[in-house]
Amino acid sequence: MTAVEIIERKRDGRELTDEQIHWVIDAYVQGRVTDYQMAALLMAVFLVGLSDRELSAWTEAMLRSGEVLDLSQVSAAKIDKHSTGGVGDKVSIPLAPMVAACGVAVPMMSGRGLSHTGGTLDKLESIPGFLTSLDPQRFAEILETHGLVLAGQTETLVPADRRLYALRDASGTVPSVPLIASSIMSKKLAEDLDGLILDVKVGRGAFMKDQQEARILATTMVGIGSRRGLLTRAFLTAMDQPLGREVGNASEIAESLDVLTGGGPEDLVEIVYLLGSEMLVLGGAAPDRTAARGLLSKVVHSGAALELFGKVIEAQGGNPRIIEDRSLLPTAGQVDELRSPRSGYIVQCDAQTIGVAAMRLGAGRERAEESVDPAVGITVLAKEGERVEQGEPLARLAWNDRMRLREAKDLLASAWSIGTLPASPRPLVLGEVAS
Amino acid sequence: MTAVEIIERKRDGRELTDEQIHWVIDAYVQGRVTDYQMAALLMAVFLVGLSDRELSAWTEAMLRSGEVLDLSQVSAAKIDKHSTGGVGDKVSIPLAPMVAACGVAVPMMSGRGLSHTGGTLDKLESIPGFLTSLDPQRFAEILETHGLVLAGQTETLVPADRRLYALRDASGTVPSVPLIASSIMSKKLAEDLDGLILDVKVGRGAFMKDQQEARILATTMVGIGSRRGLLTRAFLTAMDQPLGREVGNASEIAESLDVLTGGGPEDLVEIVYLLGSEMLVLGGAAPDRTAARGLLSKVVHSGAALELFGKVIEAQGGNPRIIEDRSLLPTAGQVDELRSPRSGYIVQCDAQTIGVAAMRLGAGRERAEESVDPAVGITVLAKEGERVEQGEPLARLAWNDRMRLREAKDLLASAWSIGTLPASPRPLVLGEVAS
Repeated sequence: MTAVEIIERKRDGRELTDEQIHWVIDAYVQGRVTDYQMAALLMAVFLVGLSDRELSAWTEAMLRSGEVLDLSQVSAAKIDKHSTGGVGDKVSIPLAPMVAACGVAVPMMSGRGLSHTGGTLDKLESIPGFLTSLDPQRFAEILETHGLVLAGQTETLVPADRRLYALRDASGTVPSVPLIASSIMSKKLAEDLDGLILDVKVGRGAFMKDQQEARILATTMVGIGSRRGLLTRAFLTAMDQPLGREVGNASEIAESLDVLTGGGPEDLVEIVYLLGSEMLVLGGAAPDRTAARGLLSKVVHSGAALELFGKVIEAQGGNPRIIEDRSLLPTAGQVDELRSPRSGYIVQCDAQTIGVAAMRLGAGRERAEESVDPAVGITVLAKEGERVEQGEPLARLAWNDRMRLREAKDLLASAWSIGTLPASPRPLVLGEVAS
Repeated sequence: MTAVEIIERKRDGRELTDEQIHWVIDAYVQGRVTDYQMAALLMAVFLVGLSDRELSAWTEAMLRSGEVLDLSQVSAAKIDKHSTGGVGDKVSIPLAPMVAACGVAVPMMSGRGLSHTGGTLDKLESIPGFLTSLDPQRFAEILETHGLVLAGQTETLVPADRRLYALRDASGTVPSVPLIASSIMSKKLAEDLDGLILDVKVGRGAFMKDQQEARILATTMVGIGSRRGLLTRAFLTAMDQPLGREVGNASEIAESLDVLTGGGPEDLVEIVYLLGSEMLVLGGAAPDRTAARGLLSKVVHSGAALELFGKVIEAQGGNPRIIEDRSLLPTAGQVDELRSPRSGYIVQCDAQTIGVAAMRLGAGRERAEESVDPAVGITVLAKEGERVEQGEPLARLAWNDRMRLREAKDLLASAWSIGTLPASPRPLVLGEVAS
């Protein structure tokens, strides 16, 4: 078997065997297949596609490139949730303690922000002292003790994905459904889960701009999970405007605390309860979504979810007092406002533009090696359908660096479209995919 | 401009601008675009294609990666001929002196053999002392003096092609019409020619097995040449069985001398006169092909073509006495024969199998870095349509290494199919493409 034979076969539209797929991924990780050969193969996969069988083998080969967690000492059902990434998407942070407080174990492995989207790890790290880098043993211990752990991917899990992702990023092969699906699902399959909820974001602020394409991705990922016996459900949710009002890191922790104390913006709360109720049903903690919603509401109003969040923050080295005293979260030195040039109704509040502006402000990173400023961020004061008067603020910017503020503000001005009539509200949940 | 933007654009089926194409080829040659980025782009080109405009820009960018010959001191029209490669294809060797003897300058740049096909340079180097590696100045001098020079590509011409070809070879992107066409044409455009004849080989022993595909390649190359003002004509010629009877190096020089002295096998002579007459017409030395054939025949029968060949051999360091004394060419130590298992008519005499057998015998190379044995080779004694009796030889093998002989002979046995009825002869010339 040679790399060239495998590349030619895929290029010519013929299916690869499971053996060929395992060989080429293994050989790539071991350095016997070069970057340029893998780049040619990735482009062929991008343009020709992978069959369901090939995709399962590809995902399995990636999964087997590293260790797989052993969470067998945790007796509760283990359910994780993954989002394809959006602007203001802090759903995981209130969701995980709420679900865990209802008795379903949540071994949550999240990622960092890239480009216009934020990342759960960056947000969690704005909690003073909080460590997201845990070795597999410590990860399992915290999960066993609290039913909840919030961490980053460990180095030993799916090393093939890190190498392939970096190569895809540099070779123009990122937005490919089979390559995205296998990247996400190999990492989730390495977590030893019983069930997985996927939040596939669709719209201007999502990687998937098109609903049809997002549905294909959702169906592809559910297929990979199901064929391997993992209970997998996907929701398609709108990502045209930011979710909630905060786009930043510390500010998104604060907004998450709002949800955990029974408040928070309506759209964010809706997604948290939708995904959370499905997690409880998958985990066997509730017979149906209605019952599950009741349980989630109960652990919020009893304070049990917030309390659990505090315990896990403490277990992971963070300052648990942030849950009652938000002034302990980092704050920016200065605040500025973007004012509305005229009166009217918000027709569009563009998540992509706001996400890029937040990145320029320092809340996100353009390249993976950059660091983020946890204190800066944008508060969205006018969302779609809302009335705004001339001179009223559209957004508030918490900033630390004047150059960055200027850049962010210049961009931000184009994020809003203002019309004379209120537009009819658009649905937040666009679809659902089960196996 | 970034490599990723250019890759994505081609991947998504959008045309690249001339500027983008020049940038990416230049940046690749200079090392600012990586091998893996170029491999991804080559695969996208392979699968998506290039428009005529893109292809002209791609070829131009390759051409500009190095020097271009200046042959302006040669007053005669300069016409070269290129073959896509076949088995027993020694056409260039008698053709070039015949055309040059008629007053058209022939600055011939040839390649080496690879895989089952032989290369003109390897054949020429079987002439004792003959040097095919000439610097541009010496190349121009010999051409000016004799109207003929027979050499390899110099290092300074189209360096992009050497790098791209090596990358294509290792990344499964060789058999792509635009990539083959731009590789060939960039090198020919660097030769400062007035006209070019392309011999596109089609059939079992050619890289193009399919006539339709070969016609597309021919049309593509003629288009590149014509758009740049180079008179370009292509012929599609059959390469199902070897051309002529000799498949080797020294033996193909000997067979070429047969043609130059008015003999030689019919199929070889037919191709030499067809291509030669078109070269004379393109070069303005004859008004039409019929007149041109008369001129070619004249320089053969007068001995002028052979004499010129001898002078050029001498100018390039070779022993010119080989033209009258073939025993000065290298000869193999031993001779063996492959005998026919039964009586009948030859239905098939497979060029590919015979080419691979000759390579195994030592006449060709599997990898570019191997050397060849000039003395060994196969003489094809029974070609398609010919009658053979049981026990009569199908081929004679001139050999130097018993292991190689065994390997070659084992393979060779499967090259012939013998039937009971004579098959109707198939045409040698399959088509013609002019701009």
